[in-house]
Amino acid sequence: MENVVVENIYLLVVVTLISVLQNAFFALKVERQSLSSAAFERVSCANRNCMDAYPTFLAVMWCGGLCLSQAPAAFAGIIYLVVRQKYFVGYMGQTSQSTPGYLFGKRVLFFLFLMCIIGIFNYLLVRHYGNEYKEYVETITSASSALLLLP
Amino acid sequence: MENVVVENIYLLVVVTLISVLQNAFFALKVERQSLSSAAFERVSCANRNCMDAYPTFLAVMWCGGLCLSQAPAAFAGIIYLVVRQKYFVGYMGQTSQSTPGYLFGKRVLFFLFLMCIIGIFNYLLVRHYGNEYKEYVETITSASSALLLLP
Amino acid sequence: MENVVVENIYLLVVVTLISVLQNAFFALKVERQSLSSAAFERVSCANRNCMDAYPTFLAVMWCGGLCLSQAPAAFAGIIYLVVRQKYFVGYMGQTSQSTPGYLFGKRVLFFLFLMCIIGIFNYLLVRHYGNEYKEYVETITSASSALLLLP
Repeated sequence: MENVVVENIYLLVVVTLISVLQNAFFALKVERQSLSSAAFERVSCANRNCMDAYPTFLAVMWCGGLCLSQAPAAFAGIIYLVVRQKYFVGYMGQTSQSTPGYLFGKRVLFFLFLMCIIGIFNYLLVRHYGNEYKEYVETITSASSALLLLP
Repeated sequence: MENVVVENIYLLVVVTLISVLQNAFFALKVERQSLSSAAFERVSCANRNCMDAYPTFLAVMWCGGLCLSQAPAAFAGIIYLVVRQKYFVGYMGQTSQSTPGYLFGKRVLFFLFLMCIIGIFNYLLVRHYGNEYKEYVETITSASSALLLLP
Repeated sequence: MENVVVENIYLLVVVTLISVLQNAFFALKVERQSLSSAAFERVSCANRNCMDAYPTFLAVMWCGGLCLSQAPAAFAGIIYLVVRQKYFVGYMGQTSQSTPGYLFGKRVLFFLFLMCIIGIFNYLLVRHYGNEYKEYVETITSASSALLLLP
């Protein structure tokens, strides 16, 4: 496709590739643990929970990146992958300790969701009022994405 | 991205956002029911069936919206989300009553699938014969999408 | 959307449609086998493994097709669907014979992954050095995709 399109999505593609690598890592863990039944149960459950949320994450990240701007969306995607890695490793921990719940990365997904909403509203406002304040919104988004680093 | 791109996808993005909200609603239900085992079993199964069909739905809706026209695709997406909500609520009902099967929203998915096929055929015809009857097809699609409202 | 966009994605859309048909075939198998518990267990497990890998496959195929060129990506997608069909049928076989593992189509997914990486690198090189060797890379990719046919 033309470079003008790739320019707008290449960061999103990079994050998607990293997430695919992570999926492969999870799947390998599931394959390797298929002998011992207790560990297999945990790994399989963690992998399934991660896979359940995967299309939702992809959809929100791509919509946010296409509708508003790609750099904060890709950054939030990276944060989500780190959170997912922690979740997976925590799930595989000792049986005695309590496992994390079903949901994870709520804050990151909420941030991406907000980006989509702002992008859609921004588009509708620009279309109906012709007022171009998109760069202003993009700057705020880039700045506020740093808040995701807070623990 | 440029507004010319967003103009062609913003309805699809809105439906995707609503579906993400619905996913979050399902996941919250799963988390809340994790104490009582009988209800948890049902909620978890309903959520899993919905999540299994989710990427298929997203792929068909976006392809149909991009290849033909976005308004009927987004409308069919809304109908699908309503059907999914009904399916989920029906699954969580009394144990005595029979639960719905594995598939749901077949008609909506079939309609979106048909839209993709028509869009692809239309593109190939326009490319090879140079005959522009796309607007005619789009009008028919918009009109026929109202048929999805039939019970 | 404009035909210039559809021209760059229509092969990917066709493969996506075929994969959706295959998903429907799997889901029908699950529904039909829900009476006998032993066969249902196997079919359900095979379907779930296929669905787990589905978003990953879609993401890699679309990224590879958008970033580099769509014909080899669509071809690799077809190969993946054939492999998936074999995996599903093999999983449903006799209980006595050993079932295939959790992963399948590793080579095809790796090929698509490589296409994405090459496409991203190519874009970055073109952007920074202004050297247009994309067609050269596309020719190599089209030629090497034939290697996927090796058993």
